[in-house]
Amino acid sequence: MATMTFPETETKESKKSTTKYVYFFGGGKADGNGKMKDVLGGKGAGLAEMTNAGLPVPPGFTIQTEACREYMRGGLSPDIDKQMDEALAKLEALQGQKLGTGENPLLVSVRSGAKFSMPGMMDTILNLGLNDQSVQALAKRSNNPRFAADSYRRLIQMFGNVVLDIEKLAFEEVFDAKKKQKKAKLDTDLDAKALQEVIAEYKKVVKKHAKRDFPQDPREQLVLARDAVFRSWQNDRAKHYRRMNNIDDMLGTAVNVQAMVFGNLGDTSGSGVGFTRNPAIGTKEFYGEFLMNAQGEDVVSGVRTPVPILKLHEILPEAYNQLREITTRLEQHYKDVQDFEFTVQDGKLYMLQTRNGKRTGLAAVRIAIQMVDEGLITKEEAIFRVEPNQLYDFLVPRLDEKGTKVEVLATGLPASPGAAVGQIVFTADAAVEAVHKNAKASVILVRAETTPEDIHGMEVAKGILTSRGGMTSHAAVVTRGMGKCCVAGAGDVDVNEKAREMRIKGQIFKEFDWISLDGTTGRVIKGKLNTIPANADDPELQKFMGWADPFRKMKVRANADIPRDAIQARAFGAEGIGLCRTEHMFFGEEKIGHMRTMILADNEKDRRAALKKLLPLQRADFAGVFKAMDGLPVTIRTLDPPLHEFLPRREDLMVDIALLSRYSAKQKKELVTKYKDYGIKGVGDLKKALPVLLGRVEQLHEFNPMLGHRGCRLGITYPEITEMQARAIFEAAVDCTKKGIKVHPEVMIPLVATLKEMANQGAIVRRVAEEVFKEKGMKIDYMVGTMIELPRAALVADEIAKEAEFFSFGTNDLTQTTFGFSRDDVNKVLPTYLAEGILKQDPFAALDQEGVGQLVKMATERGRKTRSNLKVGICGEHGGEPSSVEFCYRTGLNYVSCSPFRVLTARLAAAQAAAAEALKVEGGRTK
Amino acid sequence: MATMTFPETETKESKKSTTKYVYFFGGGKADGNGKMKDVLGGKGAGLAEMTNAGLPVPPGFTIQTEACREYMRGGLSPDIDKQMDEALAKLEALQGQKLGTGENPLLVSVRSGAKFSMPGMMDTILNLGLNDQSVQALAKRSNNPRFAADSYRRLIQMFGNVVLDIEKLAFEEVFDAKKKQKKAKLDTDLDAKALQEVIAEYKKVVKKHAKRDFPQDPREQLVLARDAVFRSWQNDRAKHYRRMNNIDDMLGTAVNVQAMVFGNLGDTSGSGVGFTRNPAIGTKEFYGEFLMNAQGEDVVSGVRTPVPILKLHEILPEAYNQLREITTRLEQHYKDVQDFEFTVQDGKLYMLQTRNGKRTGLAAVRIAIQMVDEGLITKEEAIFRVEPNQLYDFLVPRLDEKGTKVEVLATGLPASPGAAVGQIVFTADAAVEAVHKNAKASVILVRAETTPEDIHGMEVAKGILTSRGGMTSHAAVVTRGMGKCCVAGAGDVDVNEKAREMRIKGQIFKEFDWISLDGTTGRVIKGKLNTIPANADDPELQKFMGWADPFRKMKVRANADIPRDAIQARAFGAEGIGLCRTEHMFFGEEKIGHMRTMILADNEKDRRAALKKLLPLQRADFAGVFKAMDGLPVTIRTLDPPLHEFLPRREDLMVDIALLSRYSAKQKKELVTKYKDYGIKGVGDLKKALPVLLGRVEQLHEFNPMLGHRGCRLGITYPEITEMQARAIFEAAVDCTKKGIKVHPEVMIPLVATLKEMANQGAIVRRVAEEVFKEKGMKIDYMVGTMIELPRAALVADEIAKEAEFFSFGTNDLTQTTFGFSRDDVNKVLPTYLAEGILKQDPFAALDQEGVGQLVKMATERGRKTRSNLKVGICGEHGGEPSSVEFCYRTGLNYVSCSPFRVLTARLAAAQAAAAEALKVEGGRTK
Repeated sequence: MATMTFPETETKESKKSTTKYVYFFGGGKADGNGKMKDVLGGKGAGLAEMTNAGLPVPPGFTIQTEACREYMRGGLSPDIDKQMDEALAKLEALQGQKLGTGENPLLVSVRSGAKFSMPGMMDTILNLGLNDQSVQALAKRSNNPRFAADSYRRLIQMFGNVVLDIEKLAFEEVFDAKKKQKKAKLDTDLDAKALQEVIAEYKKVVKKHAKRDFPQDPREQLVLARDAVFRSWQNDRAKHYRRMNNIDDMLGTAVNVQAMVFGNLGDTSGSGVGFTRNPAIGTKEFYGEFLMNAQGEDVVSGVRTPVPILKLHEILPEAYNQLREITTRLEQHYKDVQDFEFTVQDGKLYMLQTRNGKRTGLAAVRIAIQMVDEGLITKEEAIFRVEPNQLYDFLVPRLDEKGTKVEVLATGLPASPGAAVGQIVFTADAAVEAVHKNAKASVILVRAETTPEDIHGMEVAKGILTSRGGMTSHAAVVTRGMGKCCVAGAGDVDVNEKAREMRIKGQIFKEFDWISLDGTTGRVIKGKLNTIPANADDPELQKFMGWADPFRKMKVRANADIPRDAIQARAFGAEGIGLCRTEHMFFGEEKIGHMRTMILADNEKDRRAALKKLLPLQRADFAGVFKAMDGLPVTIRTLDPPLHEFLPRREDLMVDIALLSRYSAKQKKELVTKYKDYGIKGVGDLKKALPVLLGRVEQLHEFNPMLGHRGCRLGITYPEITEMQARAIFEAAVDCTKKGIKVHPEVMIPLVATLKEMANQGAIVRRVAEEVFKEKGMKIDYMVGTMIELPRAALVADEIAKEAEFFSFGTNDLTQTTFGFSRDDVNKVLPTYLAEGILKQDPFAALDQEGVGQLVKMATERGRKTRSNLKVGICGEHGGEPSSVEFCYRTGLNYVSCSPFRVLTARLAAAQAAAAEALKVEGGRTK
Repeated sequence: MATMTFPETETKESKKSTTKYVYFFGGGKADGNGKMKDVLGGKGAGLAEMTNAGLPVPPGFTIQTEACREYMRGGLSPDIDKQMDEALAKLEALQGQKLGTGENPLLVSVRSGAKFSMPGMMDTILNLGLNDQSVQALAKRSNNPRFAADSYRRLIQMFGNVVLDIEKLAFEEVFDAKKKQKKAKLDTDLDAKALQEVIAEYKKVVKKHAKRDFPQDPREQLVLARDAVFRSWQNDRAKHYRRMNNIDDMLGTAVNVQAMVFGNLGDTSGSGVGFTRNPAIGTKEFYGEFLMNAQGEDVVSGVRTPVPILKLHEILPEAYNQLREITTRLEQHYKDVQDFEFTVQDGKLYMLQTRNGKRTGLAAVRIAIQMVDEGLITKEEAIFRVEPNQLYDFLVPRLDEKGTKVEVLATGLPASPGAAVGQIVFTADAAVEAVHKNAKASVILVRAETTPEDIHGMEVAKGILTSRGGMTSHAAVVTRGMGKCCVAGAGDVDVNEKAREMRIKGQIFKEFDWISLDGTTGRVIKGKLNTIPANADDPELQKFMGWADPFRKMKVRANADIPRDAIQARAFGAEGIGLCRTEHMFFGEEKIGHMRTMILADNEKDRRAALKKLLPLQRADFAGVFKAMDGLPVTIRTLDPPLHEFLPRREDLMVDIALLSRYSAKQKKELVTKYKDYGIKGVGDLKKALPVLLGRVEQLHEFNPMLGHRGCRLGITYPEITEMQARAIFEAAVDCTKKGIKVHPEVMIPLVATLKEMANQGAIVRRVAEEVFKEKGMKIDYMVGTMIELPRAALVADEIAKEAEFFSFGTNDLTQTTFGFSRDDVNKVLPTYLAEGILKQDPFAALDQEGVGQLVKMATERGRKTRSNLKVGICGEHGGEPSSVEFCYRTGLNYVSCSPFRVLTARLAAAQAAAAEALKVEGGRTK
């Protein structure tokens, strides 16, 4: 084996009159190199790099990505065919073979290879060059007519499917019929003769479906296969994958044409795949599997069970040792875990691919630490070796899919990561009842959509599945806050609450059937899988964060409404509460009754009476949060949601009123319970009280509640609500301070659009603060600020900053209003938008820097122009999303705030942003 | 009478160490002058001006507005009392009297007077200075004890009410009891003795309610009265008036203290009010009325019927002639119609007030023309003598209130101007039925709110009354488009559709009861008033517009969806269609069925089949509009509203399904009719079809439809809709062109937020255009552009302009999203916001220049940076609102577009804006 060297050649092609479309590799030398991923794709660049390093790579050539882009634009330059023919001639000369011709015909593989790995998404054709003649030559040369026939039959099948667009099923029917006829159990039970019969029938299939013959001309095969690979860039699953992984649709794929090597030539041949370290759990072990007498596709297809790669040492020790040596060097060279493919043909090893290996978060952290310990990378480099989102793995359980047949029923949005395995129930009450009967019961709450009234059920459920709603739907936001697994908006799930069942693509699931949810991928899986528990205290995680955190300049806070969540957030490293939503406090069993009384009051006096009962309850809530965050700032938002969220649904009431006279006595009693909070004490009250209640609900009804009577508009129309809340905050703050707790309250006014709104509410808060301080004989420091969540607020931020001591961007609402997208309804549009490339990302998941970001920047600058020390943060869902955190850092925000389970992610993202700047790392985060 | 001169003195007070709070007038000389309205208020400035001109004005002094502002800020400077006492002393010296003391006591009036006239909104106290002593002196001196006692009793009543905040009722009860006791029919039937008894009891009322005695010290009376006038600036009706008239809350009022003159001293005394020209119809006639032996308040109170002012010539010819001379000169001086008040005391004329007279639009135009003819003003000045909004008067009928007792039942929003008198009905069907039975029937459709399904009823009704919804609610927008009177959001009107009645403050009105609506003021009036018809062809209006229009640089277009409206708009001078809403076309009887079929289709094929049936209908609609606008541009917007607007209401369906099994055969038949468009052919279909329909409606249901699946999002998810519409447009355009009609279509894509949306829809439109041109063998010029109605669109306007050839601001939606205000729900918040001064104006009525305006400016600039010849207009409701039109002119827009009935207003506003710039007129429009 030649000494392995990785020459650094020029990566940019020099400007010539003719574009270089085709890059040759082979004979120890390649036109390209490993850095040319843009041009050659990941696979092509790897093949070139390995060839240049003298590794045993089957020779071939790469048609670069620009050709694919030309193809997409509607026409290929004639230079491409010309250069391809030249490269083919060179390959034939090197191999001493002719493509599909002669006694020793050259056969090639044609594979796609984009800049970013898209495993399995695009198409591959093997054994190209075979035809009615060359198949005989191959049989003769390999002395294995069955192998030759099987190779030809595979080519026709792959070519027919990929190039000629014939359904796989059409070929499979023929093949299965032949097996049945020959009473064959396994594919390998068919002999050469049978396979020749299959080939004859396959040709008929081609003729019938494609209205043409299978092409016998090898060059025609090559051209058609190349173009099919270009087309495969645009297939639905490739588009879907790019969307999921945020890959630019315009990149295109390269095409790699490479001399075939055969792992299926007999007992000294085989194929395998592997990793230089364990990509699942990060242990340092040679990891992978192989199959003797098999082609690469057989290893991954699951028809035969592969054996662990270490076994190769016993079977083919020379090839094994060479493989170990090569892959170890590759890892040293790339300074990262390598994911490789190889084939052994007649005892000779060929490397088919190498690339940086994908890995879990657990593995990413462990491998980064190992590599620092090994001196392979620096601590600073290690920081970028973990995707911030991958840290979820430490916080949530995972599904254990090992050795299990996983039947994916549906895929929804990965709304809240982790895993949940449980029995399905269809109402919050049913969830509570199940857990009440058996404290160890695992239930999964399945709803069309969740509402605040489902909270008690969501709290006891292991996971939540909804058929409607997006990444920031109620279910998604609440479960992320709870660190509980949620799959949202799984449109294939048809929930029938009344019948207590759900249908998924024809299958019916009844109450208490088992399902498993993967909140990290959005999969809904049939049956009961095992889970692997979370581990946030992992010492290696702590070590890793100990390297990253010192770079960080931006604080990370958490959105938390109750003491339990605050404690949790602090454990994950939150440096304060950036958003404490007081309305979530109102949904408790005891409180919601008073809240409802307050809402139904039609005069200030009754409202005040109800508020008086809420005061001590709110005060206790706040005291709990202050205690949990001792020494750290706590931002408390005054009441925000439209009041009708606290009331029964209008349509339910209408139906109940319509049916009242027909209801049985039992049904009427149930109604009394359902509406007990609304002054209905007995069955006799229903007839009169329900229409009155409906009247009030109608009054509060809004066409577009998101743009309605909410936020500071509530506090302005009902100042007594703000008064009560301010009193609860400051009474709790003073009480806590007297107990030695360090309290830093920041009172935040929501949905401000004008200076006067801010001034109005700020004046109430400050007046009540002074009153409380006087009553209690103690003053504490506090701030009053606002959320910037409406475009107008950003536009007049200079004005608003006159009264606001801090800004916190509510980027959920700011995105809604800037885009005119309701986050609860966006799923009607978003799938099309992402599929069509109109949006690259869900703007509720990753901040729209081009549009919404302008307003964030504008408000920050204008606000600080008025008040240079203005504290600015973000508390929308974006506060825990890495690219958004990076944007916040660049924009000069003081902190980001996110749900507790995103705190670690935000810390790492913020650290990476600062470290990238300090270390001048290009591009910041790793890809 | 002295020669009348109007000296020009310095209007700005010079900076002295002490602020000048009190301005004296009297003895032919005043400290202030007529230009000092900011300081002295309108009344004070007028009194100073008249005094300086030597007119017979009772002397006195004005306490300036700064004092009021100090009072509002919480404290008066001691300088004010000091300066007031000095002025009082000067007044006493001039008159040879002492305030409320001695044989000839000085009595004064204390009146408010703000910069802008706010008639009747603030408080006045007359006869101040009277007490138990001075009332006797007055009796003696006037030789009229009854007069003296009556004056004193009025003072106590006014003072008690205004200063001491005692309800008027408390005094009226006493007075009425006394009349009953004395068997008096009229107030004047009570003699001096009876009035003295009333005085004694009034004092007890004061003691009881105010816990203090009526102050006997005249100076104390004066100080308290002054402060009460300051306070009255903040009373609810004053605040309301300012809100309605867009007057700054911070201006404050001045206080005028003036020696009393008495019109009620006997048969040679009297009081009157008048105008130098008829303010109702603009004829040049001395116009007004007076009452002998009466004070000013009696003239306006309506207790006694005043006589026409010309009669004064017979009764007191000398005073009459003097009055004519003075007022004629005042008009010459101010070069405008004067609205004056006068008193004759013992045959001597006193002028109490003069000011520019308010007038109707009709009068404003006629008077402006007269004054130009008379050489009093130039044509250029005349342009500013008419408020653009006043031109409505020419386009709509008015209520004729002359000689009628007007009982205002409720006041709503003046949603669409004009008058309507008719019998009330509560459903669109009932309206149609009534008109069907009797083509001459006048009906007024009363609804809680209207929806597109009410259109057929709205079309036949004379006017619309709704209890919910704002200035841009469905009812408001549609009626303005129709030029039909509408009062919207009249919260006191409680509509019970089922019972076919409405309740207003306890009164019940049944179907076919008569009411009258004043859409110009928002009044709902009981009974059947007469109306005065509209007159848009008025030659004087044409003459006036002929002066204004040549100044105009900005085009004025109309929003019109159907040929009838387009023809109407053109008649009013529209220079194109700025917004043709294609969805309004779909609500026709024949079309909505196909539309519904299309929406309910769950696949593209069925959708296309339904669209095919819509195509010829749309094409015919477009052809009609093109024909009407021959030679002028027509902007057609592709489908915009959420699809569920075309479907039945979700809650109706739920109730119908719940009750289905209980419904009678007749009710079921009605259901079949109700749901006939949804494939329900007979009663047997209901059970199965209704839940299916509900399922589809549920699928389309949105939490916030305004932010949902609408606008270009429809065209992107269902490109076949855009295709059909584009085809209908271009087929109609080519067909018309072939007939010799000049067609300039501008296809407008709604709700664009990103360049890619614009590019997607633009590509479809352009492709279909080419297809049609090819098929028809003829090309025509057209443009494709977009509405800018989302903040994001404004932020990335430079991008969007790459694909859009024009922008049209949809400021309704832009206001909704920038403010986060749903226009259908804003009425829950807006009244409080306006009352509290948080907003100065309804941002849906007048463009929010501070916030939304920034986006308009930004988008215009950024768009033109990319495309320097970008055509920019506005088609939101603001396009017909004068201050918004002015803003558009300043921002450099090419045109405004508004509903046909606002075209005249927009033309004048645009002309005034340009003329103000050309002529360097300060402030632009007249106030």
